[in-house]
Amino acid sequence: MKDLAYYNGRVTPAGEMMIPAEDRAFYFGDGIYDVTTVHGGKCFALDDHCARFYGNAVKLKMDLGMTLDELKALCLSLIEKLDGDVPEAVLYFQASRGSAPRNHVFPEKAKANLYFTLKGATLKPIGQTVTAITVEDQRFEFCDIKTLNLLPNVLAAQKAKEAGAYEAILHRGDTVTEGSHSGVSILSGGKLITPPLSRFILPSVTRKHYIELATAIGVRVEEREFSLEEMMGADEVIIMSSTGPLNRVEKIDSHPVGGRDPALIASFAKAYAEKIKGETGASPRLA
Amino acid sequence: MKDLAYYNGRVTPAGEMMIPAEDRAFYFGDGIYDVTTVHGGKCFALDDHCARFYGNAVKLKMDLGMTLDELKALCLSLIEKLDGDVPEAVLYFQASRGSAPRNHVFPEKAKANLYFTLKGATLKPIGQTVTAITVEDQRFEFCDIKTLNLLPNVLAAQKAKEAGAYEAILHRGDTVTEGSHSGVSILSGGKLITPPLSRFILPSVTRKHYIELATAIGVRVEEREFSLEEMMGADEVIIMSSTGPLNRVEKIDSHPVGGRDPALIASFAKAYAEKIKGETGASPRLA
Repeated sequence: MKDLAYYNGRVTPAGEMMIPAEDRAFYFGDGIYDVTTVHGGKCFALDDHCARFYGNAVKLKMDLGMTLDELKALCLSLIEKLDGDVPEAVLYFQASRGSAPRNHVFPEKAKANLYFTLKGATLKPIGQTVTAITVEDQRFEFCDIKTLNLLPNVLAAQKAKEAGAYEAILHRGDTVTEGSHSGVSILSGGKLITPPLSRFILPSVTRKHYIELATAIGVRVEEREFSLEEMMGADEVIIMSSTGPLNRVEKIDSHPVGGRDPALIASFAKAYAEKIKGETGASPRLA
Repeated sequence: MKDLAYYNGRVTPAGEMMIPAEDRAFYFGDGIYDVTTVHGGKCFALDDHCARFYGNAVKLKMDLGMTLDELKALCLSLIEKLDGDVPEAVLYFQASRGSAPRNHVFPEKAKANLYFTLKGATLKPIGQTVTAITVEDQRFEFCDIKTLNLLPNVLAAQKAKEAGAYEAILHRGDTVTEGSHSGVSILSGGKLITPPLSRFILPSVTRKHYIELATAIGVRVEEREFSLEEMMGADEVIIMSSTGPLNRVEKIDSHPVGGRDPALIASFAKAYAEKIKGETGASPRLA
């Protein structure tokens, strides 16, 4: 198949899946999701993403009805259904608390609904140059859990699009948190500076990889908050996500930013591409 | 029919509706909803609820694909399908931005998906006595829009249930906002004190009715914030929603509250019941 959707055991082409309207994802967003990429038929960072997804289910007291190993095996079995000539794909997986007539409290004996999509895609080249805008972070205080309550993210992403920008960088007061669908870090004085984990940002898998790669290439890491002002004056600003691990920001709110440490950007791009190749055997595109 | 679901023109029994997994409500909660009650086949406060729903669609730049009058006519046409011997029912209606492959930005030329359920129910008696707990309000800053991003509400309601309470009263810092699925007001010194409209509370239709009824029965209204402490010491604490317009709170976090102005509670209960009877011809139960 070129693309597919999975729901509780059923498999269809991606655009054709039907689900019950009583799935609590549909009327409460009572669920979680995760996303990773597939390169030449091999999944990248599957353990990291499945572990986070599984942990989020536990945090929300959702019963996935399977072990972590069974979840991984299910992901792999879906990837096997993908045509061999699909070079790159995006794997999306979601679970809701279950199906029941609408009532805020958890249904008795609920079993999660599992939904996956797997779609061929042209992934963004690592190291591409992008622009961003800043938007006040008005999200809830559960941002450390990758939930389906994404309306503020949708509205911020739309604002970015209407401004002709790639991403909306969110901030609480003067403090940068993350993007509407990505993480944000800066490079300054040869160091990687990335916001500390808290209930205001997602524990990004890509961020974790950056910290590992920085250590491997001898770059110091500071996990600390930074302000909008510090970001605007940083040597480089990086927007990172699973589907686009390194986007170098050249303009924020129409002001030029970064561009002062291209060598370190290139080192991270090379290290990340090698990490993907090491795991999947496939070489991602570099910008 | 005893109950039904409607989705973009299709009608089924309530528990049997299937919808496309690409409905943006399912993976982003990118939509809105509203709820009202039906008494003896007549809808209560339909204009208020349809106007709020329509206004929320405009706020989120969603195209409902119909006028406000057409929306009301659709609600009424569904109520006509209900068996004549169903004495009370709950009408739920929801709209999402549309169906499309998952992408945060608005899909081009999206047309809303409309979903309704109509279910026979035994409504809560007006004036019933309940208990509550307090929970920190960790929701986003779009609480003035009745959106499908309800995970914090779900978690707070579940906490209340586990504590054996009817509702979770939310507070930001020391300031009371509203319940997980209701509004909260207090009576003190013969006055109705209700939080002012802001991005932290829903413009509750029931709250609006209370303000109108208070004026009609000669009770002064103060629209202002009140603290947890003021609530704990108020003459009466009221939890209000469309499906339960007057719940008198007797305990919060296991501490006795209210009970000091039963005459005013009884006046509001009588006035609300008369309002429902005036509009629908049916007499709701009084506790």
